[in-house]
Amino acid sequence: MRRQRVTVLAGGVGGGRFACGVRDLFADQDADLRIVVNTGDDMWFAGLRVCPDLDSVMYALAGVNDSERGWGRAGESERVSAEMAAFGMDTSWFTLGDLDLGTHIARSALLRSGTTLTEATQRLSRRWELGATVLPVTDAEVPTLVDVELDGHPARIHFEEWWVRHRAAIPTNGFVFEDAAAAGISAAAAEAIRDADIVLIAPSNPIVSIAPMLAIPGVRESIGASRGRVIGVAPIIGGHAVRGMAEQCCAVVGVPATAQGVGLYYGARSAGGILDGWMVDTVDADAIGPLAMGGIHARSVPLWMRDATTTRALAAAAVELASFRPLVEPAR
Amino acid sequence: MRRQRVTVLAGGVGGGRFACGVRDLFADQDADLRIVVNTGDDMWFAGLRVCPDLDSVMYALAGVNDSERGWGRAGESERVSAEMAAFGMDTSWFTLGDLDLGTHIARSALLRSGTTLTEATQRLSRRWELGATVLPVTDAEVPTLVDVELDGHPARIHFEEWWVRHRAAIPTNGFVFEDAAAAGISAAAAEAIRDADIVLIAPSNPIVSIAPMLAIPGVRESIGASRGRVIGVAPIIGGHAVRGMAEQCCAVVGVPATAQGVGLYYGARSAGGILDGWMVDTVDADAIGPLAMGGIHARSVPLWMRDATTTRALAAAAVELASFRPLVEPAR
Repeated sequence: MRRQRVTVLAGGVGGGRFACGVRDLFADQDADLRIVVNTGDDMWFAGLRVCPDLDSVMYALAGVNDSERGWGRAGESERVSAEMAAFGMDTSWFTLGDLDLGTHIARSALLRSGTTLTEATQRLSRRWELGATVLPVTDAEVPTLVDVELDGHPARIHFEEWWVRHRAAIPTNGFVFEDAAAAGISAAAAEAIRDADIVLIAPSNPIVSIAPMLAIPGVRESIGASRGRVIGVAPIIGGHAVRGMAEQCCAVVGVPATAQGVGLYYGARSAGGILDGWMVDTVDADAIGPLAMGGIHARSVPLWMRDATTTRALAAAAVELASFRPLVEPAR
Repeated sequence: MRRQRVTVLAGGVGGGRFACGVRDLFADQDADLRIVVNTGDDMWFAGLRVCPDLDSVMYALAGVNDSERGWGRAGESERVSAEMAAFGMDTSWFTLGDLDLGTHIARSALLRSGTTLTEATQRLSRRWELGATVLPVTDAEVPTLVDVELDGHPARIHFEEWWVRHRAAIPTNGFVFEDAAAAGISAAAAEAIRDADIVLIAPSNPIVSIAPMLAIPGVRESIGASRGRVIGVAPIIGGHAVRGMAEQCCAVVGVPATAQGVGLYYGARSAGGILDGWMVDTVDADAIGPLAMGGIHARSVPLWMRDATTTRALAAAAVELASFRPLVEPAR
């Protein structure tokens, strides 16, 4: 019998947590789980290729993430970066933990030897029994950039610099997925999306985690052509981000920071968008009607991923939603 | 009054120790001390530029070297490299300590941003009060390679691979200073040698620490043109290397592994070599006559650098030798 194919589109920490819930849900079924991950946050930093979202997802699936701090490796230390600071390097704004540096150095060496990011990610992932295949959405370098004003002058800086160094606190005019048009979805990511029995969109930041993926040629097309239904999970509960700064990011691009707003921003797959179904929190149940008007079949359940049990229940509800019968049978 | 200019040519650990003795000797005199360091051991390793001799000299002068282990930083740990090994990287043969990695990453980032090795070394050195200027002999990449037989086939491997990975235990046909002819001494190293009041050759491995420097165009010329006398310290005592594997290296190139043999291998500056004077150990006093026949003014003193006091005394004896009166006054 063919293994069930489940594909998740994910950003970083929230995506990793949700991916764990999906993995746990299918643990007994030998499903073929693939996590397609945003690479817009990736950057060359201190000469090393840093991939925050890929690492967050990998660490979460491996169970080596720091769940208290919310990011990075558990048991982390910063001996190396203290040295770099002592040498006067201007890199202290971005934490380079010692354990994390092992990942960065290994990946950078692989990339510099000509390995693709997809293959490098496989090589790194092999260390653990992840129960899922982690796939960068593209092998190309497509940094998310941010148009800001620095000292009164317009400037375009890397997303991580805006997000981490400036804590997203400087005026922002927009996000730019530079070089996206010239890039392309990786063959592995395209196959994962197109051949899936179900595609899940994790409750990640819609503007800076999911949108950068959608900007890459082939991603929207693969979602549109997927044989499986596409179910998203709202990253907003009662008008507030589940975690991170989705509200600020939504405001920059004029998307209402609500479960309904983000669902309609993604749009119905039947109308050129990416969603068949959309999970909203029980407090946002009144969005179900308007979403249905937009062609999106929504359902309300508790969205908070408090622990493994609630996260697994959320994944189960999303999978269950994928089996909905359309309100109107398509014409034959 | 012009500061006294003292320049030392040095390899790694032994060179660093000797440099400390010279610095201590001139500590009260505000001398301008410059250490010109071998870069033949340098390599790109795991995507990072590793410069073993530069670091050994810098760490020794900074007092942060591990004097018990004999190399690297004191208080070192290996968290990062344990991660790299866990990822299956084939890099465990060369120790990358966490503190050391701070140096490697900082330097690599500087080099990749277009900084020369000379400038990068200054930037790193600035962290400490070294009491000396550490100068790579060249800004070019001139790796020392080793011709060996691997599994019965001839192969040319990096010196560090032969030295560290294979512990110099595989048959060797010779050392190759690849790309040396196309390289050139750095302007700073050339000036340090030419304008010195005295040039000291540290008791470093003559074949793989000093010879790689001499192979770089401009080094022999600078030594030949130096306004100061050039005094070397034998790295061999009673036919045995002070430390390291000078004996094996001498054997490869057919140089007698004796104080006399290495002195004559360097040769008298008056005859196109690099030495005016040569310090041998008291047990090698019988070499003084043959060396004088070769045009080298030799003197015997205890050469063992047991501690700061004996090392400083050795430096003092070498400096004293530089003021010798020639046996035959040059024709006027």
